[in-house]
Amino acid sequence: MARKQGSHAEITGPRLRQAALRLFARHGFAAVSMRQIAAEVGVQAGALYLYTADKQALLFDLMRDHLEDLLADWSPPDAPAERQLESFVRHHIRYHLDRPDLVFIAYMELRNLDPANFAVIERLRRDYEDQLEAILKRGQAQGVFEVPDTKLATLALIAMLTGVTTWYREGGRLDRAAVEDHYWRMACKAVAAAR
Amino acid sequence: MARKQGSHAEITGPRLRQAALRLFARHGFAAVSMRQIAAEVGVQAGALYLYTADKQALLFDLMRDHLEDLLADWSPPDAPAERQLESFVRHHIRYHLDRPDLVFIAYMELRNLDPANFAVIERLRRDYEDQLEAILKRGQAQGVFEVPDTKLATLALIAMLTGVTTWYREGGRLDRAAVEDHYWRMACKAVAAAR
Repeated sequence: MARKQGSHAEITGPRLRQAALRLFARHGFAAVSMRQIAAEVGVQAGALYLYTADKQALLFDLMRDHLEDLLADWSPPDAPAERQLESFVRHHIRYHLDRPDLVFIAYMELRNLDPANFAVIERLRRDYEDQLEAILKRGQAQGVFEVPDTKLATLALIAMLTGVTTWYREGGRLDRAAVEDHYWRMACKAVAAAR
Repeated sequence: MARKQGSHAEITGPRLRQAALRLFARHGFAAVSMRQIAAEVGVQAGALYLYTADKQALLFDLMRDHLEDLLADWSPPDAPAERQLESFVRHHIRYHLDRPDLVFIAYMELRNLDPANFAVIERLRRDYEDQLEAILKRGQAQGVFEVPDTKLATLALIAMLTGVTTWYREGGRLDRAAVEDHYWRMACKAVAAAR
């Protein structure tokens, strides 16, 4: 009996994206050719164009999907602002530790996006930042947070949390739970109102 | 009377480094050739080798000098730990806002350093981190800071502060003094002991 298999497109599309991500992260977008990506996937260079318009489209798709997934994967719990912040911190750390290559690309390759693509990515990034800023504003209104500039505090906290990807190693001195706890404590104190 | 001028080496060396920095930041180390750097400086490609061993040496020199300057440019004031932290925060922000290309390169191109060069850069980076960690430990011993893990807190604060280079624009909503003040307040609260 013939085994049912995914179509060629279903198999090659994801493999193509994984190969592109790996090569972009290792060498940088500008240094990688469609020919190299094809070789990594194990197809002829011409065949890639069945799955993607060009290298720019590959980069854009990776970055857009990253941010859309990040946004779709989190929703604030129906809870006080402090608990919402905790949920955001833990989700952000988990999501980013699972995807170090994507985090690296998303920061590093912004300069290589076409202007129209850059605008889309910037919009998604702001949508994500707005999620955190809304929590800070809510906590401020409730008197539990004291944040003179909620936009700056949002960017500062996100940079602090994302930085975990530059040093965390599985099996290192601290496990993920401990790392989350420490960042959560620091984030909470950084925005807390004086008591 | 003949004007005294810098030697060829004194003029071309710094211009070469500036050109390399600009091109690496714009296109990425792997995508830039010595030929392109020579064209940017306005000399023949062969002439570059009078000033640098190769592209790897150019990258390494940029990153090493960046970290050595960063270290040389700061010393803790003879003051309580809280004031030392303030001094560190303000210095870090100023130094990094003045050198966005170097900050970008120093993070992004670590992957392109030869192992021996990487080890040197990592050592310098740790020396810098140790400066901040020493302040946190001192404040902890004095009871003004409460930091369960001083190493993690060091990395978290440095990531938070360095992130300012990704969003700050001269002439924007906040001036540098306001930005420094906000980051300093957040950093101080993040590590403060409960009162």
